[in-house]
Amino acid sequence: MRKSENPESEEIKAVLFEMGEKARIASYELAAMTVHAKNECLMAMAAMLESSTDEILAANEKDMRAGMENAMSVAMLDRLRLSHERISEMAQGLRNVVSLEDPVGRRLSTVIRPNGLKIEKISVPIGVIGIIYESRPNVTVDAAGLCLKAGNAVILRGGSEAINSNIALARALHAGGTKSGLPDGAVQLIPWTSREAVQVMLKMNQYINLIIPRGGESLIKTVVENSTIPVIKHYKGVCHIYVDCEYDADMALRIIENAKCQRPGVCNSIEKLLINESILNEFGPKAAQLLTEKGVELRGDEKFCSVVPSAIPASDSDWSEEYLGLVITVGVVNDVEEAIYHINKWSSSHSDGIVTANPQTAEKFLNGIDSAAVYWNASTRFTDGGEFGMGAEIGISTDKIHARGPMGLPELNTYKYLVIGNGQIRD
Amino acid sequence: MRKSENPESEEIKAVLFEMGEKARIASYELAAMTVHAKNECLMAMAAMLESSTDEILAANEKDMRAGMENAMSVAMLDRLRLSHERISEMAQGLRNVVSLEDPVGRRLSTVIRPNGLKIEKISVPIGVIGIIYESRPNVTVDAAGLCLKAGNAVILRGGSEAINSNIALARALHAGGTKSGLPDGAVQLIPWTSREAVQVMLKMNQYINLIIPRGGESLIKTVVENSTIPVIKHYKGVCHIYVDCEYDADMALRIIENAKCQRPGVCNSIEKLLINESILNEFGPKAAQLLTEKGVELRGDEKFCSVVPSAIPASDSDWSEEYLGLVITVGVVNDVEEAIYHINKWSSSHSDGIVTANPQTAEKFLNGIDSAAVYWNASTRFTDGGEFGMGAEIGISTDKIHARGPMGLPELNTYKYLVIGNGQIRD
Repeated sequence: MRKSENPESEEIKAVLFEMGEKARIASYELAAMTVHAKNECLMAMAAMLESSTDEILAANEKDMRAGMENAMSVAMLDRLRLSHERISEMAQGLRNVVSLEDPVGRRLSTVIRPNGLKIEKISVPIGVIGIIYESRPNVTVDAAGLCLKAGNAVILRGGSEAINSNIALARALHAGGTKSGLPDGAVQLIPWTSREAVQVMLKMNQYINLIIPRGGESLIKTVVENSTIPVIKHYKGVCHIYVDCEYDADMALRIIENAKCQRPGVCNSIEKLLINESILNEFGPKAAQLLTEKGVELRGDEKFCSVVPSAIPASDSDWSEEYLGLVITVGVVNDVEEAIYHINKWSSSHSDGIVTANPQTAEKFLNGIDSAAVYWNASTRFTDGGEFGMGAEIGISTDKIHARGPMGLPELNTYKYLVIGNGQIRD
Repeated sequence: MRKSENPESEEIKAVLFEMGEKARIASYELAAMTVHAKNECLMAMAAMLESSTDEILAANEKDMRAGMENAMSVAMLDRLRLSHERISEMAQGLRNVVSLEDPVGRRLSTVIRPNGLKIEKISVPIGVIGIIYESRPNVTVDAAGLCLKAGNAVILRGGSEAINSNIALARALHAGGTKSGLPDGAVQLIPWTSREAVQVMLKMNQYINLIIPRGGESLIKTVVENSTIPVIKHYKGVCHIYVDCEYDADMALRIIENAKCQRPGVCNSIEKLLINESILNEFGPKAAQLLTEKGVELRGDEKFCSVVPSAIPASDSDWSEEYLGLVITVGVVNDVEEAIYHINKWSSSHSDGIVTANPQTAEKFLNGIDSAAVYWNASTRFTDGGEFGMGAEIGISTDKIHARGPMGLPELNTYKYLVIGNGQIRD
């Protein structure tokens, strides 16, 4: 018997298709909603989150107990844990989305053709967005708020660790929203955690227009390999800083410390450091001392290890690994061209920077590096929707199609052409 | 033994990976080329096409003979056939691309943040684009020209019917281009026609950034189901015209005739007609007479057939079928809302139009229809890069991600952020 023929699968499929159809219908209603109406829904959702705090905390308690029984790590448990404060932060997040500009209906261009046809390019919602994510329950609220403001229906599929919390959060969002006129299918959460549900979801092309996976490498890989729906990946951050020979040592050290140590568990922190060979003897030991003092484990290529003997010789896999912790791999390059070559080869195309006092060298680097964000004399930690002035982000795309880098509200829209005539036909 | 372990597969994989690596390296060189240098390559490619006419025609002759032996249809043979004139049209196509504006390096926005960081959003090439197409050999030249002007390397995979023609064309493009400084891996054609080569290509995420399939439904389906690389579909055109109750009958007839009959084999011609019920008795027979005179087979829903008894009762599949010929299915709706609902359900989201004299009704339709191009009082046949003023197009996207409708040079670019500081770190 083929797997899809077992009754349980058929039930999953039937329920998901029903959710898909509801989302599709809701997406048309959302696309037509005024910004005022959308904002009222967001406010009502925020209020309902706060007034449902007890139910949400009770549901979260179940997830926490299950996590402890399954020997979840302290860091994971901390990401999973909700509190009064965290719930009111989520509600505040929704209220912040209210203050953001409506991305829908922007006139992107207008052309009058010689035959008199007027062609307007207008921003419109994408339609139905599927979000697949792990552990942190706040994604349920953040993603729903941003998708709604951008006029999209959303189908959420969170991780099994947080299933009870997510169901309680989604229920509050739905109840609050629909009381204020939110279409019934606008915010839906898949109530199962089986892999099968994800497999069905990833092939629902007739209902879902875009999948955004947020999570670790294996989640992203599963989604990319199985989805027939367009995917915008929020993949790992293997970020670099290259220190050029014409440089301010204090600035370089400050940037390296910030980019590596300020919050090592996030995707815009650096995992690799490249040093120009001509400053290796002078700068290598200084950087090593600073990083070692901060508790960072040093790995290095042969040249770096010859100057900093305490560094561990790097293996090939070190160049592509995202440590998300206090580890860094240091390499030595001859010039900016070699740095560019190395970074384009090994970077995950997220955020890479140069420290140099020479504008020509900086320009080469800025032009040559093929990453979403390329920095000159600043920490890579700024790759973030808030820091870029977007107000909020649904994540950071490491893809090149549609959206690159932080994805804010405009990136949750597409466009259509309105063609207005008075009887024109084609010759 | 697994299929991928047979030596032939391994050879295909090895050659394709080598092509991918060459393309990736070429893409960095292309991204850095001036518009002048790219234009010189395009001119040299055009000249080499013309001076290679004899070789190209000899190769095409082989494909034509094989086509005739395989009992290819007259229409297919005509699409495959090259001539002196068609080759010089292709060369002229490349020269036209020279005159188009360079899409690379546009400053899309500049922001100065409160901390002094300057964030510039700049258009850059996508990287490596894979084009998978059928029969018409001119796609080889058009796609290569547009990808090159937009700064992308291209890997072409044409249909087996045209393999000899495509190899000869690609050889001329490569020879002409490289003489003028085109990077070696900028324009490459996969020399095999096996499905296996496509399967390998569709999973070369490390080398290819975007796949554009151009062809029939089964080609698109295969690509979408198997690609782990982002795909922008150029899918079928199931286009509609809705004739409202407040209308100019002459304009409606002129637009319907043009949209259905002027070139019925292309994606922007209409396949369906919707008529407002209150004008059915008056307009139905007129439209039927006109279309019948033009040789169009009429199919219709129950209401339409009751007024036009010569129409064939439509089956369910008629509503989603792209005939690409002289057939149309006609339905009757109560009002613009029902027309919108019907079109959003059955359209392929390509091009749909309304004929109405009422601006409020038109606005409802323009806002409500979820298609790449939405028309008011004009023929849908204008959905085309040239007609939209883009100069040239690589195709017409029926997807909503990255590009929608005609894809010109700007849609063959993405962007990156340049972040320029003087030592900023994050708190």
